[in-house]
Amino acid sequence: LSTSSGKPQRFGWQIKPSKLSLNTHNRIRNIVESLKIKPNPEKPMIPLSIGDPTIFGNLKAADETMKAVLHSVESGKYNGYAHTQGHEAARQAVAKYSAHQRPNEEIDPMEVVLCSGCSSALEYCILALADRGQNVLIPRPGFCLYHTLAEGLDIEVRYYDLLPDQQWRADLVQLESLIDENTAALLINNPSNPCGSVFDEKHLRQLIGICERHYLPIIADEIYEHFVFPGSKHVAVSSLTTEVPVLSCGGLTKRFLVPGWRMGWIIVHDRKQRLVDAVVGLKNMCGRILGSNTLIQGALPEILAKTPQSYFDGVIDVLHSNATLAYKMLKQVRGLNPVMPNGAMYMMIGVDIERFPAFKDDTHFVQELVNEQSVFCLPGSCFEYPGYVRIVLTVPKTMIEEACARMTEFCDRHFKKDSRAFIEHGLLDEEDLAF
Amino acid sequence: LSTSSGKPQRFGWQIKPSKLSLNTHNRIRNIVESLKIKPNPEKPMIPLSIGDPTIFGNLKAADETMKAVLHSVESGKYNGYAHTQGHEAARQAVAKYSAHQRPNEEIDPMEVVLCSGCSSALEYCILALADRGQNVLIPRPGFCLYHTLAEGLDIEVRYYDLLPDQQWRADLVQLESLIDENTAALLINNPSNPCGSVFDEKHLRQLIGICERHYLPIIADEIYEHFVFPGSKHVAVSSLTTEVPVLSCGGLTKRFLVPGWRMGWIIVHDRKQRLVDAVVGLKNMCGRILGSNTLIQGALPEILAKTPQSYFDGVIDVLHSNATLAYKMLKQVRGLNPVMPNGAMYMMIGVDIERFPAFKDDTHFVQELVNEQSVFCLPGSCFEYPGYVRIVLTVPKTMIEEACARMTEFCDRHFKKDSRAFIEHGLLDEEDLAF
Ligand SMILES: Cc1ncc(COP(=O)(O)O)c(C=O)c1O
Ligand SMILES: Cc1ncc(COP(=O)(O)O)c(C=O)c1O
Repeated sequence: LSTSSGKPQRFGWQIKPSKLSLNTHNRIRNIVESLKIKPNPEKPMIPLSIGDPTIFGNLKAADETMKAVLHSVESGKYNGYAHTQGHEAARQAVAKYSAHQRPNEEIDPMEVVLCSGCSSALEYCILALADRGQNVLIPRPGFCLYHTLAEGLDIEVRYYDLLPDQQWRADLVQLESLIDENTAALLINNPSNPCGSVFDEKHLRQLIGICERHYLPIIADEIYEHFVFPGSKHVAVSSLTTEVPVLSCGGLTKRFLVPGWRMGWIIVHDRKQRLVDAVVGLKNMCGRILGSNTLIQGALPEILAKTPQSYFDGVIDVLHSNATLAYKMLKQVRGLNPVMPNGAMYMMIGVDIERFPAFKDDTHFVQELVNEQSVFCLPGSCFEYPGYVRIVLTVPKTMIEEACARMTEFCDRHFKKDSRAFIEHGLLDEEDLAF
Repeated sequence: LSTSSGKPQRFGWQIKPSKLSLNTHNRIRNIVESLKIKPNPEKPMIPLSIGDPTIFGNLKAADETMKAVLHSVESGKYNGYAHTQGHEAARQAVAKYSAHQRPNEEIDPMEVVLCSGCSSALEYCILALADRGQNVLIPRPGFCLYHTLAEGLDIEVRYYDLLPDQQWRADLVQLESLIDENTAALLINNPSNPCGSVFDEKHLRQLIGICERHYLPIIADEIYEHFVFPGSKHVAVSSLTTEVPVLSCGGLTKRFLVPGWRMGWIIVHDRKQRLVDAVVGLKNMCGRILGSNTLIQGALPEILAKTPQSYFDGVIDVLHSNATLAYKMLKQVRGLNPVMPNGAMYMMIGVDIERFPAFKDDTHFVQELVNEQSVFCLPGSCFEYPGYVRIVLTVPKTMIEEACARMTEFCDRHFKKDSRAFIEHGLLDEEDLAF
């Protein structure tokens, strides 16, 4: 017996989860859980997979940041509900802190929406702009959360390619070809997870140009905006356009090394009043879970004003010197092609998988690297980009050094010079091949 | 020109908000904003509308609760990401704290999901159980968030009536008549906002019986579970059934007087393994915004263990004596019918609107009460229940006293004995009527 709606009538306990909940996939977890991992007991595990910069112990929140929260707690003033978009003073502080995103014009605190982490900021932006059946353009390789947030609501994600040999700039032609009348937004992640790339101004202007031609708003995931290595410069996309509306997502998570605090925000850059209705929707969304933790909101003005530049410089220094070290070491490994990052806290490493005939793909490579060497990277598949692995740069220097040494050993062991050609043709001696 | 999808192709800036975001309404705010309010400048405002118990200054979080957070911050151990469902130790603490919800069997920490406030707990429960086109049964009068959370996702809400003259028990016959093959869950809010009612065991068993007959899981909003006045007893619905799966939503918000901290939780009671798939969905949902603030998670074990009973008793005492006082005063006001609450922190007051011909409905009554007396109640319409107003009981005693005195003055001034009959029939002298 079934009804017109197609659902069987209930004659027993058959509680189904919603499609939304089932389609809210965490791709990283799914892939990681599919690995058959048994780390080598002889070698202590080095998890270069973990995007939490605080767990290795070498990187810690600044004393000033911590003190600001203590003051907030001690004041006893921040236990009550805040405005769903955040306390006025906290939003004011974020507006001031983010002044570089809009030179020559002040950001109004009303244009700031505090959220429960940058994740929640991204969720609100995507869900406020895109309806079921619409699509959002997202980068490949890219952070898997965009997909997680969109797919459960039947919002299609369309991947535009980042080009590893062009410093991970977007393939503009391919990107533009994805746009149709159902495209709701272009999502830019700059600096990028997992690439560690930082778009230059010229490239950003090209992206803006596309959005202008197609009347597309930009969702800018700029959570790593201040994680930029010496010699590079992060330019906020919102600073380059008054035509294209930009929703910039940021937060304390990475720069202040406090991911657990869940303090993120959206800054609405809408100079030509093109998002007015959408911003109403965006603010409605805040009414769903009533905002972010108020103790952190209470601390925000002090955190943003008092955490010293020297602290930030110290963190960048760790990331940059780890990147330089890992790049130098891995560059020399046959079969690996690290791409030197300019920011964020990751490095992508190309794996010439045909040179490692023992492994069928990046995921298999990662699995065996754990099993033999107890070094855990994330396979590029986690970012829709097979053929690469991603390492984090937030670990202590000795760890990155040791990890790279083990990866070298691992690759040396499994590397076969043009093995397929050798096997297929039976013509060449392995030693004859040069690179 | 338009495409097959019915959407016009984009030839200009026409960024529309999503349906989800537009349909995420906050009914209280919508109604309150529609009021034309100009408080009487002669009288200081008494906002009996505000559901934040901390803003009046008389009710404060316990020292023990605050200290627990200071310890958590000072430890420096809780800055990183937690498991998306929460730190193990925090979930363990909630499981122990909630033991009364499942006598004779331990709650496993794996059955606890920490969320960003009880709101987020409710969001996940509703969204994990119900698909677009399905329906959830919710109480009327009831907390408007249920509607806010469901309607944007095209999940229908169906209201079952609570009966004011039966201590706000549900109308079981009407409730059962709402159930069809698309009903995904019964939501119970006990103790109730706005009614302040507490269901007795017998009534809970009746509700369970309906769910058993129709194979319906229960979402139990038990955020006020410990806000029960002397003489009443809260019984957790999960403690009465092993047949019907129950998702109990709770949190620190009300009992610990820290709504801004956004610490809520879901406890999954699924003794017969009927929610296994739905719980996978529920846990997936946590991957969307990556959990709740970790400083509070770190403090949870200490908060739940150390906040003393005397503190809770003190808060109940304030609520109960305010309820008793307001009831006693308002009971004597012609045209008002307060319903004495047994728990939570609200009281509903019936308004015989036909006796106040100056006002067309509860909303109008509320508006003029502010304008004349600077006393702000919420109209019952905010809870889908016109003809009533809701006051909060969390204010200082002198405030509730003054508010009730002003309400008395207001009602006395506008009360017309059987005015409609008088006007309509022209037969009776006002003074002739007795009650
Ligand atoms: C690119 C990117 N955006 C957003 C986030 C989420 O940040 P949050 O922890 O503040 O939600 C991350 C976290 O790793 C990220 O890498
Ligand atoms: C019945 C009910 N459920 C849930 C909530 C939301 O609680 P939280 O602030 O923890 O999200 C409230 C808040 O007023 C409420 O009254």
